[in-house]
Amino acid sequence: MGDVMNTLVIYTYPNHQSLNYAFLQQVLKGCNENPYITELQVLDLYEEKFDPILHFHEHKRRRDMYREPNLEKYREQLTWADQIVFIYPIWWGRPPAMLLGYIDQLFASNFAYRDKKGLFPEGLLKGKSVVCVSTMKGPTNYPLFWLNNAHKVLMRKALFNFVGIKKVKFFEFGNMESKKGGQQKKLEKIYQYFRQCQSPKQF
Amino acid sequence: MGDVMNTLVIYTYPNHQSLNYAFLQQVLKGCNENPYITELQVLDLYEEKFDPILHFHEHKRRRDMYREPNLEKYREQLTWADQIVFIYPIWWGRPPAMLLGYIDQLFASNFAYRDKKGLFPEGLLKGKSVVCVSTMKGPTNYPLFWLNNAHKVLMRKALFNFVGIKKVKFFEFGNMESKKGGQQKKLEKIYQYFRQCQSPKQF
Repeated sequence: MGDVMNTLVIYTYPNHQSLNYAFLQQVLKGCNENPYITELQVLDLYEEKFDPILHFHEHKRRRDMYREPNLEKYREQLTWADQIVFIYPIWWGRPPAMLLGYIDQLFASNFAYRDKKGLFPEGLLKGKSVVCVSTMKGPTNYPLFWLNNAHKVLMRKALFNFVGIKKVKFFEFGNMESKKGGQQKKLEKIYQYFRQCQSPKQF
Repeated sequence: MGDVMNTLVIYTYPNHQSLNYAFLQQVLKGCNENPYITELQVLDLYEEKFDPILHFHEHKRRRDMYREPNLEKYREQLTWADQIVFIYPIWWGRPPAMLLGYIDQLFASNFAYRDKKGLFPEGLLKGKSVVCVSTMKGPTNYPLFWLNNAHKVLMRKALFNFVGIKKVKFFEFGNMESKKGGQQKKLEKIYQYFRQCQSPKQF
């Protein structure tokens, strides 16, 4: 028997009449059938009317962001989660501003990482795992070959590895506005993944 | 005598007590002394309280974004500009969510580009030039070698080239929180660049 995995799903898409929302439903369906996922939380950033703008100034210092009272409930979610699932579209080669604004604010110094000597800090979110489910209009070889894989590099290396998260899995689905995009097969793949996934502590 | 260049400066930083603001001042000082820049507009996204969240749903379709009335004045600025200067910090390997939200909304289909057959669309902002002035805490070889140059690739290829802007210049300044970061020299470099730059139509 594996460890249970508290799972937080962060969904970022303006519209519920969408393929992204269908992916969310498949993630939830899979998680609900997974014996290792006994607790599940969903954060729908648009529904939540999350304010993505990071503010700081003389009276609200950036170094104090990690204890900003308005963000306490979001920090608690991240701390609680063993597995964090992000669902979002790729716009201009990267996630929407809404999701990046959540990151600008939540992944604060002294909450997500702590500076120390040397180039890299100490990651404070270590032990967690991340799954990114993203959709794009074009084919997936466009970002891979034309953009040096920039989306995955930024998410994996500049963000998750930096805060100590080593286990990062991507599902990038392309051609999502095409009738030949194989949407049903991709939805099924996501459902099956979440129905069966286990804690990284297992391996 | 070269062509005059209408110049739009888009500044994205929460705080005016900052090195980013000092870079803005040097850009403006240089532009004001440049004989080819007779008109200059500044868009300070934080001061402007720009709403970076792209919304769309059944009653507000994404395909109509290009004529959204609330964004008309920003579209007019972009259309007017021959040269667009972006000043911003690098957070998590890329610009702040505030700037990316401006892009999510302004660089809309049928304003910034028009879909046509094939992988790439027709860029509708062609003929303009872009200069990105960015600051980062770490050394500039970190994004270059560790992140596959992801910031520049996303800005140049996934964004500006996509909308038809071929002339894109970067000033990436690293070690900006270090006393040995050479800040004065870098501020002077920016001033000199904008004092002397000429329209790309010249070349």
